Amino acid sequence: MIQTITGRSDFIERLKGKNATFMLALSNTDTALIAGITQAGIPGQIYLTPTLDGEFVCTGAVHSLTQIPKTPTGIPTPALLSRAVHLLAPFNAIELLNLGLTIPPKVEGFCVHDFGLSPSGSIDQNAQIDARILFEKGRAFGENYTPKSDYLLLGESVPSGTTTALATALALGYEAHEKFSSSFAHAPSSIKHTVLNKALSHLKKSDTFFDTLGKVGDHMLIFTAGFLLGAHRKGYPIVLAGGTQMACVLLVLNAFLRYTNEPFDASSIALATTKWVHEDTNSDLKGLLEMLDFPINAYYANFDFALSSHPLLALYDKGEAKEGVGAGGCLVYGFLQGLEKASITQKVEAFLA
Amino acid sequence: MIQTITGRSDFIERLKGKNATFMLALSNTDTALIAGITQAGIPGQIYLTPTLDGEFVCTGAVHSLTQIPKTPTGIPTPALLSRAVHLLAPFNAIELLNLGLTIPPKVEGFCVHDFGLSPSGSIDQNAQIDARILFEKGRAFGENYTPKSDYLLLGESVPSGTTTALATALALGYEAHEKFSSSFAHAPSSIKHTVLNKALSHLKKSDTFFDTLGKVGDHMLIFTAGFLLGAHRKGYPIVLAGGTQMACVLLVLNAFLRYTNEPFDASSIALATTKWVHEDTNSDLKGLLEMLDFPINAYYANFDFALSSHPLLALYDKGEAKEGVGAGGCLVYGFLQGLEKASITQKVEAFLA
Repeated sequence: MIQTITGRSDFIERLKGKNATFMLALSNTDTALIAGITQAGIPGQIYLTPTLDGEFVCTGAVHSLTQIPKTPTGIPTPALLSRAVHLLAPFNAIELLNLGLTIPPKVEGFCVHDFGLSPSGSIDQNAQIDARILFEKGRAFGENYTPKSDYLLLGESVPSGTTTALATALALGYEAHEKFSSSFAHAPSSIKHTVLNKALSHLKKSDTFFDTLGKVGDHMLIFTAGFLLGAHRKGYPIVLAGGTQMACVLLVLNAFLRYTNEPFDASSIALATTKWVHEDTNSDLKGLLEMLDFPINAYYANFDFALSSHPLLALYDKGEAKEGVGAGGCLVYGFLQGLEKASITQKVEAFLA
Repeated sequence: MIQTITGRSDFIERLKGKNATFMLALSNTDTALIAGITQAGIPGQIYLTPTLDGEFVCTGAVHSLTQIPKTPTGIPTPALLSRAVHLLAPFNAIELLNLGLTIPPKVEGFCVHDFGLSPSGSIDQNAQIDARILFEKGRAFGENYTPKSDYLLLGESVPSGTTTALATALALGYEAHEKFSSSFAHAPSSIKHTVLNKALSHLKKSDTFFDTLGKVGDHMLIFTAGFLLGAHRKGYPIVLAGGTQMACVLLVLNAFLRYTNEPFDASSIALATTKWVHEDTNSDLKGLLEMLDFPINAYYANFDFALSSHPLLALYDKGEAKEGVGAGGCLVYGFLQGLEKASITQKVEAFLA
């Protein structure tokens, strides 16, 4: 049920039956306010998506709006998969990172880590993130944080995050065109290209590494790259639960390491995503991972909605939505806990009933 | 260095060298706004005390004001002791419970558990707490929470909390007059008695257990009693780091158990306080604990400022301040980690230099 994309299968085998903390990095970038750039949420209220995703994963309900996030065509957030797995094989803990939310999630009693951040700017106008300080915040957090579990599963919800990820990878010099996923089956390439071109037009030859990141990145990418650098020495396994955005986190870290020559050992880190990302012909996760200077373990969960007759879930199998809110990593965790495709499918269907 | 007040010494011996999570329950009650009721903070800004205590323990600095909380005569908050211990023998984690703060603490990256609470009302006008819901919130949190450490040390910062604790104990029928501590060496009994009489005048014969609690209690007392009930079955040791307020938490729980006949095993729970509370002739911690229907382990840290020549610290030894922000429990934890009185004294003195 768990397939290897790159690296070794023993890393993930060792996590069988082990308990996990699910940490969810939540952030808003004003890039998502550009009309048509993302379908990760309700038009006009897309800024609420990470807030609602956090609430739904933690509590099974949304408190800051009356309905779960879905695309304009009604496809529900992949948070349903993460929540379904949590109900069937509960995480030891769920913790949230507020990396600049417009509206903080209402999740009574859950551990929320705040970093004093507001939403970042739109990359078509220069996101104006102080990337050095943010990266160091991530690193300091990684140096100080230990999960209460055998390993950490780290997911994200950042609307328009694939656009900021693509811009970031390109700005850092990676040949990443056509390699980034999208919440759309057929990504709106004209809007996305206009935004990308505008974003890249703000870059100058004199920009430092952090200047570049601060113009075209988002808080999740920069903070998480710093976090991995700070946390990797602690030795507990970290599974990045996501697709091309999490690959971009690794690319950011990789670029930082090239620039500083700091030592880094990725052997305690892996990436886990969905089959929908793995099989997406419009993106190339494996290609992104192969650009790294260090070897990385990466896996996907061999899960689809073939067992479901629900028309909205069938759209996942047609390439809509694909990943987010740690869905792929949660499915991998679920399989490691002995869950089966049928029970996960039924649990997700129950949310839509 | 650790002395037994009630119960067995083997409980605390078993915690030697074990790592701990320090959790701090922070709350405001409008009772503290009554002039002269407490000296736990700067007059006119006493509502900031728990916020600043949380910030100082976590970060060593205060962000919501320019100075640490102190009494009008300049005695610094007992948070200095908790912080000194954390610097010398770091806790595995510090987590904050926001149980209704006027101003949330600015503690980037720390785990904060929010419960959607505002400060509670003043008990002289009926605190109007929905005590049943709050108790159940505490219980649910206890059932779901596991520390990432061998044991949990649970402290509090609630200005005027000894007044609400005394009112609560009396309202629940305990013969608790003269048994509760105060942040003053010579408690302002006339103000306190006026407030107590007013508070108790709101009680009616028809009041249920929760009606009573909701009129004269505070959020920390009620939530923590529920928390202990939910958490005690998990089996990890819980050390209530505090004096008579934490004793009142146990009295609240004890009254609940009388009322419901629910089973409860206190063998995983203890209380740890300061020598200043233990030796206080104006209160009687041991007497409060002996009112419980279950046996409880209780200890104090044999620590004073005899090694210091600092005039403000000498006031602790004269009975000012005495306890709070988990100071006594932190000192006990420090001794269990092998710290000595001299190094703790020096660290506290360094904050005042």
